[in-house]
Amino acid sequence: MKPILSSLGINRRTLLSALAVLPTVSGPLLTVHARAQTVVPGDALASWNDGPAKQAIIDFVQATTVQGSPKCVAPEDRIATFDQDGTLWVEHPMYSQVMYCLDHVPAVVTKKPELKNVEPFKTVLTGNREAMAKFTMRDLETILAATLTGMSVDDFNAEVEKWIETAKDPRWKRPYTELVYQPMLDVLHYLRDSGYKTYIVTGGGQDFVRVYSERVYGIPPEQVVGTMGGTKLGYDKEGKAFLTKEPKLLLNDDHAGKPEGIHMMIGRRPHAAFGNSVGDQQMLEWTGAGDGARLMMLLLHDDAKREYAYGPAQGLPDSKVGTFTPALYDEAKKKSWTVISMKNDWKRIFTFDER
Amino acid sequence: MKPILSSLGINRRTLLSALAVLPTVSGPLLTVHARAQTVVPGDALASWNDGPAKQAIIDFVQATTVQGSPKCVAPEDRIATFDQDGTLWVEHPMYSQVMYCLDHVPAVVTKKPELKNVEPFKTVLTGNREAMAKFTMRDLETILAATLTGMSVDDFNAEVEKWIETAKDPRWKRPYTELVYQPMLDVLHYLRDSGYKTYIVTGGGQDFVRVYSERVYGIPPEQVVGTMGGTKLGYDKEGKAFLTKEPKLLLNDDHAGKPEGIHMMIGRRPHAAFGNSVGDQQMLEWTGAGDGARLMMLLLHDDAKREYAYGPAQGLPDSKVGTFTPALYDEAKKKSWTVISMKNDWKRIFTFDER
Repeated sequence: MKPILSSLGINRRTLLSALAVLPTVSGPLLTVHARAQTVVPGDALASWNDGPAKQAIIDFVQATTVQGSPKCVAPEDRIATFDQDGTLWVEHPMYSQVMYCLDHVPAVVTKKPELKNVEPFKTVLTGNREAMAKFTMRDLETILAATLTGMSVDDFNAEVEKWIETAKDPRWKRPYTELVYQPMLDVLHYLRDSGYKTYIVTGGGQDFVRVYSERVYGIPPEQVVGTMGGTKLGYDKEGKAFLTKEPKLLLNDDHAGKPEGIHMMIGRRPHAAFGNSVGDQQMLEWTGAGDGARLMMLLLHDDAKREYAYGPAQGLPDSKVGTFTPALYDEAKKKSWTVISMKNDWKRIFTFDER
Repeated sequence: MKPILSSLGINRRTLLSALAVLPTVSGPLLTVHARAQTVVPGDALASWNDGPAKQAIIDFVQATTVQGSPKCVAPEDRIATFDQDGTLWVEHPMYSQVMYCLDHVPAVVTKKPELKNVEPFKTVLTGNREAMAKFTMRDLETILAATLTGMSVDDFNAEVEKWIETAKDPRWKRPYTELVYQPMLDVLHYLRDSGYKTYIVTGGGQDFVRVYSERVYGIPPEQVVGTMGGTKLGYDKEGKAFLTKEPKLLLNDDHAGKPEGIHMMIGRRPHAAFGNSVGDQQMLEWTGAGDGARLMMLLLHDDAKREYAYGPAQGLPDSKVGTFTPALYDEAKKKSWTVISMKNDWKRIFTFDER
């Protein structure tokens, strides 16, 4: 079951250090100010500051959608793919899906009381983050398998739905679904208004993200490509068919798995791809290898005040920066991918910044 | 690689007996008459005779799409799934995809001349159908793996495209893509005009069917769910990323694999499902297990004159009928699935019947 954990893009050290840190992040670390801004009527990218990143998006859309443009793309080929964690919403200090898994341990134990005194469930039930930080990889895998598989797909959807409506990020004290980046919502709308079909291509669980993707991003379940597990058909007492989520990995939709997942689920090469990490690198390479106009963008988290700063902006060595390595930064420069500076390119980060 | 073959729904005996029979089917076995018919203007199901099957489709569409109907289905949940082989087009005497594989052996040998004198390729090159009929399961698997994997997805698509434009069915002497059932095209259009999203859910290769699905059925590649193989990311001399088709089965989209594939690719339960064989049984069960109005239909091939007759219409025991077993027929009756009689329910079979 190792793949289940790695499939979520979880680096053990990152996870454990985040777990240890979480209790200290119990209040808002900073005040989010309503930011004054001038919304230009008709400006589809109102949350973006003028600059090369905003211009790259506008140039791409105009080149590929204005009739008569030599690079105009046929409507059916207008495909844009977006990584989720760290690209569409906050991924720090921990992926929301991992928080779901930890939060969901009590529910699993209620259904299987024999797990109450069994590790690692016992420790999770204590709520002791420091003890959890000592979990082995095997412990973590056990938790993920127990909370993400073994139930019907309908039950899983209902559980995630309930959780996502009530769980809150410890820093902003808001539902995770409010921690989406308004500038990226602008891009999603702008692309869709220009005839693009927008897809999420995430290393996270496909079933998990599908629960809220329509409501939060306007992206329907069939346009969510994620890490996929197997399901097994069974029949209830009345002979009704149902599907159970199995602890069997079908596709790890991260790194080289992203082009593979795109090929499998869409069958067309995207014309635009957005990411923020080494897990997105191959998706951008695959997108950029196509003919005609292509847009490859990487989001750089360099805004410690309004969100977080990590990656090359911090000047940290590879082993510490996690997702956006200096090597990725170099490839972006070499291949003329556009790096979005959260600090400089985004007028505001969250929808609630304006309120 | 056994799963590759079985994933195509290939029963060795069926395949081999079909191979042996093919040379004798070198001419049209019967004359297809242009059939006189009255096309009622505005009748979306013009190729159907009035009867319970046609009525079931109309009743379902009206119940689920007329506003105010207590069983009206939200537009985003209007999903209809169709098996391909034997449901949307002719599957006898052999799946077109297997014909592609056999026809494609020379091209494979051209690229890998060392295979020329190696069995089973050597025998395929002789064109001796009787010898091919003696192939072992392993021989067949070797042929399918060699012709369906090991090349880039772009090269594969180009090869299939070339083949599908020129290859002809031995009985009708027409491209396979003309052997689609006009009444099913009527249903596809009728459902789409009523806000349904139509999907192909086939045991055949997903990449294969996607090549012609838009042109032939009006179904775009992203709405084709089929048997899925893995792909591997590589880089050419200029560093450009490409995907190679691997001999690795990700999902056998047949039998219980159909609900699994639907869950994976669509993430919603269909409201209507169409099939013709035991490989479609679980898709219909999964569809029927949902709330509200559901339409489950099975096509019975009982028209030896205009197409073929096989299955319970022939009164053959289970072991002989292949795809539509008496047990399936019984389940259809028990669950009130609608059985379409090709002979009685269809005014015409093919688009060219009218010409």
